Amino acid sequence: MLDITLLGTGGMMPLPRRWVTSLLVRYNGASLLVDCGEGTQIALREKGWSFKPVNTILLTHFHADHIAGLPGFFLTMGNSDRTEPVTVIGPRGLSRIMTAVRTIAPELPFEVNFIEIDGNEQTFLIDGMEITAFRVQHNIVCYAYEISVRRKGRFDAARAKAQEIPLRFWNPLQRGETIEDGARIYTPEMVLGEERKGLKVVYATDTRPVPAIAEHALNADLLVCEGMYGEPGMDKKAREHRHMTMQEAAQIGKDAQPVNMWLTHYSPSLVRPDQYMGSVHAIYPNVIAAKDGQEITLKFEDE
Amino acid sequence: MLDITLLGTGGMMPLPRRWVTSLLVRYNGASLLVDCGEGTQIALREKGWSFKPVNTILLTHFHADHIAGLPGFFLTMGNSDRTEPVTVIGPRGLSRIMTAVRTIAPELPFEVNFIEIDGNEQTFLIDGMEITAFRVQHNIVCYAYEISVRRKGRFDAARAKAQEIPLRFWNPLQRGETIEDGARIYTPEMVLGEERKGLKVVYATDTRPVPAIAEHALNADLLVCEGMYGEPGMDKKAREHRHMTMQEAAQIGKDAQPVNMWLTHYSPSLVRPDQYMGSVHAIYPNVIAAKDGQEITLKFEDE
Repeated sequence: MLDITLLGTGGMMPLPRRWVTSLLVRYNGASLLVDCGEGTQIALREKGWSFKPVNTILLTHFHADHIAGLPGFFLTMGNSDRTEPVTVIGPRGLSRIMTAVRTIAPELPFEVNFIEIDGNEQTFLIDGMEITAFRVQHNIVCYAYEISVRRKGRFDAARAKAQEIPLRFWNPLQRGETIEDGARIYTPEMVLGEERKGLKVVYATDTRPVPAIAEHALNADLLVCEGMYGEPGMDKKAREHRHMTMQEAAQIGKDAQPVNMWLTHYSPSLVRPDQYMGSVHAIYPNVIAAKDGQEITLKFEDE
Repeated sequence: MLDITLLGTGGMMPLPRRWVTSLLVRYNGASLLVDCGEGTQIALREKGWSFKPVNTILLTHFHADHIAGLPGFFLTMGNSDRTEPVTVIGPRGLSRIMTAVRTIAPELPFEVNFIEIDGNEQTFLIDGMEITAFRVQHNIVCYAYEISVRRKGRFDAARAKAQEIPLRFWNPLQRGETIEDGARIYTPEMVLGEERKGLKVVYATDTRPVPAIAEHALNADLLVCEGMYGEPGMDKKAREHRHMTMQEAAQIGKDAQPVNMWLTHYSPSLVRPDQYMGSVHAIYPNVIAAKDGQEITLKFEDE
């Protein structure tokens, strides 16, 4: 089960009733935040969720509407009695950004580790989530993220019995451990069925539509994608600013066929994103114009 | 006429219905901001005021709840088409802070100048406002600010006529200029009455109660003062964290006798500041527990 909340839907700047775009992912007691613009800590508090379990923060790029909330977010995490280290992942140059952030928030009761993404694509395994950063196309270096949870095959007790595997090894084998017992070696493959369908979420902003997004989001359970402009005639502006229109986003949806798709990162000039959904649904129907605080619980098929 | 708005009343961190403490002062078309924590730009937008005329930002100290909103505030000022330079005034070390702020907000269409305050007290004349920073007592270097507008004496046409001052010099003399006309020198004192009562606002946070606050706020039109805690028994905590209780603030009011006094910078644990006003009013009656967006227009006596 993955709990997903879109804390805000704004682009460029926070507005009185629209926080900037940021995604919170909860899995198995751990939380992960993607992007942290000004006010993200308030948006999180409005949802009533805890700051303490946020182990990881992924940054798409270094524009202020995606990073300016970090100093306050860290301080509030500190006030929630967190002492375990936090890991920040982001583009090359993160070291310089973190120095700036720590100048504004110098005293924290936990360590802040960071990882600068290497190359066009890199995968991390954190808290049971497989996180893949992949390059997209903005006016500065920018990555989108695929967050996947894999699902092992079902444990087959009959097979375990047939192979005379001692009962005490069943649990560790089920967890994926390999066990050596004297001369015998037991592997998970001996008792687990085929890998079952996992869960996959892709978060893509700020970017032009590039093929990598649809490739990563293929059959995803949720694609969160920017749709900066909705009204007709904004294609040129979208190209110039290296953003995309809602209709361009819908085309990615059509290619990738995600089960759910949320548009976000609306231009401050876009007051009612809903009103352009007709043209969006004509391209791909499974899209909504997400609202601040939009939530979904993604479940494994047999959950 | 001075227009004053307290954009927020929170201390430590912004909350869903409480922005962090920040004061906006408008005088003669120019705006001045004191402190700029996370979300201050949203608070300003809620009030419907313009970002463009903010020429000056005063910082009391470098805790994040007073500075973390600067990158976003600057960017939004940039989006309001401002091209004139902005001046930031704050404690020594401001250069380092501004480097951090400019790392998060690197591209602005205006210059950002800054002045590190020298010594325990320093006065600046900006946009017709006399701004005095004076040292107070927090756990890092911190200044309070007195903002005064002086009021020249009334122009006395009869005296100007009696002294046979040519009519074309009346306006410049009224503005305070000295004029040399051949052998004769005309000075403002020749035509202006005694200096009239001006306007004075003092803003003091975060600090222990120190005599300088009451000295500067003596007979002020408005004293904005922190009152971090209200409930009984918080004196020790206030001393430890170098803050003050509402009752300690009221004692400053009693000493300084400001016409208006606003408490602010409430602890996040202080949900209803109003409920402690009984004990505050017993010490000094002219105090209110300010609310977010609290406003006042201060007028000259003869305005």
